[in-house]
Amino acid sequence: MRMVDLIEKKRNGHVLSENEIKFFINGYISGDIPEYQVSAMLMAIYFQGMNKEEIAYLTKYMLNSGDIIDLSAIEGIKVDKHSTGGVGDKTSLVLGPLVASCGAKLAKMSGRGLGHTGGTLDKMESIPGMTIAIEGERFIKQVNDIGMAIVGQTGQLVPADKKLYALRDVTGTVESIPLIASSIMSKKLASGSDTILLDVKVGSGAFMKNLDSARELAKTMVEIGDSFNKDTRAMLSDMDQPLGLAVGNILEVIEAVNTLKGHGPKDFVELCMSAAKIMLVQAKLCNDEVEAERILNEKIQNGEAFSKLKEFIAAQGGDVSYIDDVEKFPKAKIILPILSKKSGFVNKIDALGIGTYAMRLGAGRAVLTDVIDYTAGIVLNKKIGDYVTEGEILCYIHTNKDNYSEIIEGLEDLFTILPTKAENHKIIYEIIS
Amino acid sequence: MRMVDLIEKKRNGHVLSENEIKFFINGYISGDIPEYQVSAMLMAIYFQGMNKEEIAYLTKYMLNSGDIIDLSAIEGIKVDKHSTGGVGDKTSLVLGPLVASCGAKLAKMSGRGLGHTGGTLDKMESIPGMTIAIEGERFIKQVNDIGMAIVGQTGQLVPADKKLYALRDVTGTVESIPLIASSIMSKKLASGSDTILLDVKVGSGAFMKNLDSARELAKTMVEIGDSFNKDTRAMLSDMDQPLGLAVGNILEVIEAVNTLKGHGPKDFVELCMSAAKIMLVQAKLCNDEVEAERILNEKIQNGEAFSKLKEFIAAQGGDVSYIDDVEKFPKAKIILPILSKKSGFVNKIDALGIGTYAMRLGAGRAVLTDVIDYTAGIVLNKKIGDYVTEGEILCYIHTNKDNYSEIIEGLEDLFTILPTKAENHKIIYEIIS
Repeated sequence: MRMVDLIEKKRNGHVLSENEIKFFINGYISGDIPEYQVSAMLMAIYFQGMNKEEIAYLTKYMLNSGDIIDLSAIEGIKVDKHSTGGVGDKTSLVLGPLVASCGAKLAKMSGRGLGHTGGTLDKMESIPGMTIAIEGERFIKQVNDIGMAIVGQTGQLVPADKKLYALRDVTGTVESIPLIASSIMSKKLASGSDTILLDVKVGSGAFMKNLDSARELAKTMVEIGDSFNKDTRAMLSDMDQPLGLAVGNILEVIEAVNTLKGHGPKDFVELCMSAAKIMLVQAKLCNDEVEAERILNEKIQNGEAFSKLKEFIAAQGGDVSYIDDVEKFPKAKIILPILSKKSGFVNKIDALGIGTYAMRLGAGRAVLTDVIDYTAGIVLNKKIGDYVTEGEILCYIHTNKDNYSEIIEGLEDLFTILPTKAENHKIIYEIIS
Repeated sequence: MRMVDLIEKKRNGHVLSENEIKFFINGYISGDIPEYQVSAMLMAIYFQGMNKEEIAYLTKYMLNSGDIIDLSAIEGIKVDKHSTGGVGDKTSLVLGPLVASCGAKLAKMSGRGLGHTGGTLDKMESIPGMTIAIEGERFIKQVNDIGMAIVGQTGQLVPADKKLYALRDVTGTVESIPLIASSIMSKKLASGSDTILLDVKVGSGAFMKNLDSARELAKTMVEIGDSFNKDTRAMLSDMDQPLGLAVGNILEVIEAVNTLKGHGPKDFVELCMSAAKIMLVQAKLCNDEVEAERILNEKIQNGEAFSKLKEFIAAQGGDVSYIDDVEKFPKAKIILPILSKKSGFVNKIDALGIGTYAMRLGAGRAVLTDVIDYTAGIVLNKKIGDYVTEGEILCYIHTNKDNYSEIIEGLEDLFTILPTKAENHKIIYEIIS
C-alpha cells in the first residue's frame, strides 16, 4: 500500500477501506508516513468528506493509538457529557452533582481553557485546595463512593489526535466534520464511559456558526457512538450569547452554586435540566424525561444536589466553607459597570467577544503558559430579549489589571441593541439521538 | 503573513494576491515554510484552482527562483517548442532542422526519457559521438552559426519547480492545471527564447486524456506566455496511438532521417509540418502558414532540411556517416514480428502501453539510473485506420533481452481491432493562440 495512492483515492471522491485508514493512521503515528502526505490527505478529506463507515474506522484507529480508560470497577452505568466549547459554560459543575444526586455515575476527564473558552479544570482550581490530579484506584473509589469525579487527563489518551490536531491547526484542515467528529469521539470513547451526551454549541460564539453544520456534526458523532455500541445523544444549544451571566472562574463557580440552590439564570438552568434529563434516561435511572424532571426538581428543592456539589469538592480536597459562604471568595480590585450607549432590545451578545475580553481582563489564557486570575471576568446584567435604556448597565467587568480602560475599549459594542425584540430565542434547538 | 491563513484563503476559494504567492514560493524555497503546509496548499489549489493572474504570479516566482538563460547574443528571433510528452515523439529532431534551414534560431534545452516516454537527449546520444553537454559561449556560437542546438539543461533553472514537483508527486497533487501549466511554463520561460510553441498531447497515451482538459491546459499556458510578452501558441495533437512508426532511440533517429528526406510516416509528417509552419510565423520569417508550407516543402525537396540535421549532429560531435547510411547503426539481436490474432480495422493503439513495452524491451528507463539499450524498441506495421487480417504483422519488437517472450506477453492486445473503421481520426485537433 502506498500513501500517495490513498491520497489520490480520497481526492477523487472514493471511499477508503478499513485497512487503508488503518495504514494511514498507524503509519502516521509510527512516523513511516511523512506529515506532508498526511496534510494532503487531510485537505482531500476536507473537500471530499468521509462516509459513516470511514469516520468510524478513523475514530477506531485513533482510539487504538493510546490508552483506553477501564471504568469497569465502577458499579452501574457510567455517564459522560461533552461540550464543543462555549463562553460561560460551567455546565459540568452543575450537571455532575445533579445527576450524581440521582444515582448516576460520572467519571469525567475534563480540560483547561484556552483563548475565549474557559475550562472546567480551571474553574475547579479556583476553589481553594481543590485538586484535579486524582488517579487510578482513588478516582474509581471516589466515583463509587459519591457518584462523581472530574479530573485532568491521565494516561496517554489518543496520541494520534494530539499529533493530527497540531497538524490540522497549521494546515487549514480544522473545519472538517469527519475530522472534528473523530477527534472528539475518539477522546470520549477513550475515557471509558457507557453513555455520551454531546452538547454541540451553535452560534457566533461557537465553532459551528449555523444550525446545519452543527446538526451535521452532532449526527456524525452520534453515528460514531452508535457504531461503538455506546448510547450517544446530542443536543444543539445556543451560543449567540454567553451561557448564564457569569464568565470567569470564581464568578462561574458562584453561579453554579446558585443554580444548584435553585436560583440560576434561566437559560443556564434550562440547559442543565435538559442535559440532566437525557443523562438520567441514558443511565436507565428514569423511564422518560418527565420522570427525570420530577426527580431533578426534587433533588434541587431538597438540597441534595447542592450537598452533592460539596461532597464532590470535599472529595477532591476543596475547602467547602467557600461554597457555604461564597462571600469568602476573593474579589477583583476593580469591579466596574459598562453602560449602554443606546436604548432598545438586546438581540445578540457576541459570546466569542465576551470570552476574549474576559480573557484579556485576566480570566483566561492566550497561550497555555499564561497564569489565570481566578477573580477576573465579566458578569452580564442584560441578556437577549431584555430591554435596556441608554445609561443602563449592560455588564460588570471584574479585573486586577491597571490598564483595564484600554482593555475594555469597544466592549459595549458586543451587545447588538435593536428597536425590536428578538423573537423566539431558543436555548436548546434540537435533540439528536 | 502566516501560511496557514493563505491555505485557508485558497481552501475557501478566494484569490491569492501577488504578495501572498511570493510569500508562499519564496518561503518554500528558503525552507521557512514546511512541506506539510505546502502540500496542504497544493491540495487546496487542486480543488479550488487559480485564476489567470494567480497562475502568472505563481509562474513568475517559480521562474525567479533560479537562473534565466540569456540568449540575447543570438541574432534574430529565438523559437522554442515543448511537448507535454508522448510515445514515439522524435519531433525535435525533425522540427529543429526544418525551421533552422528556413532561418529560425532554435536554442533548445531538452530532457531525458523516463517511464513510457522517450527523451530527445537519449535519442541524440544514440548517435555515436554526439554530446548534449554544450554550454555557454559554445552553445550561443553554434546557434548563431548553424541556427540550432539541442542540449541538456545547464545552470540552475527553476529550482522551485524541482522541489514542488517532487512534493506533488508523492502528495496526489500532480493533476492540477494551474500547477502543471506553471511548472512547464516557468521552465520554458527560464530557457530564454522569444517564442514558445506548445504541443499538448491528448489521448490514452498522454497525460491529458481528453480534449477538454488538454484545451484548458493549453489555454492556461498560452495565457501565461502572453503575460510574459512571449508569442506563445499551442497545438492539441493526438496520442491515441504512438507518433509515427518507430518507438526506441536508434529506431526513432532513423525515422527522423527518413522524414527529413521526405518519406516520413503520414501522421508524423503532418505534426512536424503543422508545428514548423507555426514556428516560422512566430519567428516572423513568413507572413502566413501558406507561405511557410511552401518554403518548408522546398527545404525538404532540395535537401537543405536534411543537410541541416547533419550540420547539427556534426556540430555536437556526432558521426554523420551514420546519418548518411543508417544501415551502419547497430541492430538488436532479436527482431521479431508480432502477429494479429484477428481481422478488422485498427481503431486505437495504446500508446502508453507501447511505450511501456518498449521500455521493458530495453529502450527506456524505469528509474533514472537504468541504462538504455539504444537498439531496442518497437516498430509499428499498422496504424489507426489500417485494415489487418488475422496473422498479419502488427509490429516488430527489437530487443537484446533473452526473456523477451515473457516481456511481450499481451503486446498484441494494445491494438484495438474492430469491424468498422475509425472515422475522421485526426492528428492535430486544434491550434490555440
